[in-house]
Amino acid sequence: MRSAYHHQLDELSVQLGEMCGMATEAMRRATDALLEADLDAAEQVIREHDRLVAMRGRAEREAFDLLALQQPVAGELRVVFSTVQLIADIERMGALAVHVAKIARREHPDRVLPDKVRASFADMARVAIALGDSARQVLISRDPQQAARLREQDDAMDELYRRLFSVLLDEGWTDDIPAAVDAALLGRFYERFADHAVEVGRRVIFIVSGDLPAPDEITTY
Amino acid sequence: MRSAYHHQLDELSVQLGEMCGMATEAMRRATDALLEADLDAAEQVIREHDRLVAMRGRAEREAFDLLALQQPVAGELRVVFSTVQLIADIERMGALAVHVAKIARREHPDRVLPDKVRASFADMARVAIALGDSARQVLISRDPQQAARLREQDDAMDELYRRLFSVLLDEGWTDDIPAAVDAALLGRFYERFADHAVEVGRRVIFIVSGDLPAPDEITTY
Repeated sequence: MRSAYHHQLDELSVQLGEMCGMATEAMRRATDALLEADLDAAEQVIREHDRLVAMRGRAEREAFDLLALQQPVAGELRVVFSTVQLIADIERMGALAVHVAKIARREHPDRVLPDKVRASFADMARVAIALGDSARQVLISRDPQQAARLREQDDAMDELYRRLFSVLLDEGWTDDIPAAVDAALLGRFYERFADHAVEVGRRVIFIVSGDLPAPDEITTY
Repeated sequence: MRSAYHHQLDELSVQLGEMCGMATEAMRRATDALLEADLDAAEQVIREHDRLVAMRGRAEREAFDLLALQQPVAGELRVVFSTVQLIADIERMGALAVHVAKIARREHPDRVLPDKVRASFADMARVAIALGDSARQVLISRDPQQAARLREQDDAMDELYRRLFSVLLDEGWTDDIPAAVDAALLGRFYERFADHAVEVGRRVIFIVSGDLPAPDEITTY
């Protein structure tokens, strides 16, 4: 029989997976809000973020209590230690979805993005959401190979991000300046979302192996 | 006499203060790079970030070892627990300085910012650097009043950030689009730097009192 302690540890991992699923679903909805000018989707993302923030607070308290009362060691300590870090990454993923939703809401009923970059954003969103889904699966499976693949998936995002900025900066953007400003910020939000998902992979590798892979280079554009 | 354990705990807090000082110094130099088109300053910020990343790795390992070997409780556990979270915030502050430096380097020998927003950026940088300095002091003093004041200091940043975006979006920006794109991203980098400094204040309040103040609203623009 599993002890109450192991049950709490498992619970914490389940909560982390749920939070990652919520953040990814928020990004999916925020993308609908952005690409389809769907105001309801935008409002829902903004409204529901409070739930993720509340879950963050609860998960942090539970991680703290586990450390205080159970004093985990070795692999179990790695789980709790990484959870403390991952909670922040995952809440941030949700906050980035809120940023996307707020820009979509601000411009409603207009579409935010000029036709020229809509396809790029559809691609960036697809990669970001796939990374969020993979991160959630990796939190559950703790499969180090799958965790390492998150970084490869992110290469596609880096490429899309660079292409977006080459359109914005070098190729004579002909749309208005607010659209360029929004596209720059939105590009950054998707790219950061993907980075946090990659970070989930790194931390899961640490949980399994005790080794933390080196962080990625910093992408400015 | 202090035990080796208490010495390690103190050391960890000293390292955190040093990292925060380095990140703030990096933002100071990155701002020189940006406002004075100082290429050496930009290169230095980019080159020296590796040191902060290495300190992050070391501090994480030390926090982990403290948890594993000393099993701290109560106030001492709050110190180690918060340190794990703060390490990420402070390294991120340094990474944001690298972003500013990379934009300055990319545009060198030109200045990045049109005259119209240079004064805004000088103000944003001043507030960001003051917040970084306060965060460093608060990590050392653990004075909860001083920690709470970080949020008030950040109000000035939020106001500057909103004003920047009203210039970019609403007031008929007459400069070129790359300048608008850079100004939007740079504004975001300073604003995020300030947010992480405020987070330092929140975590120090938790260390001292055991209560974590509610997080701030999300600022999109």
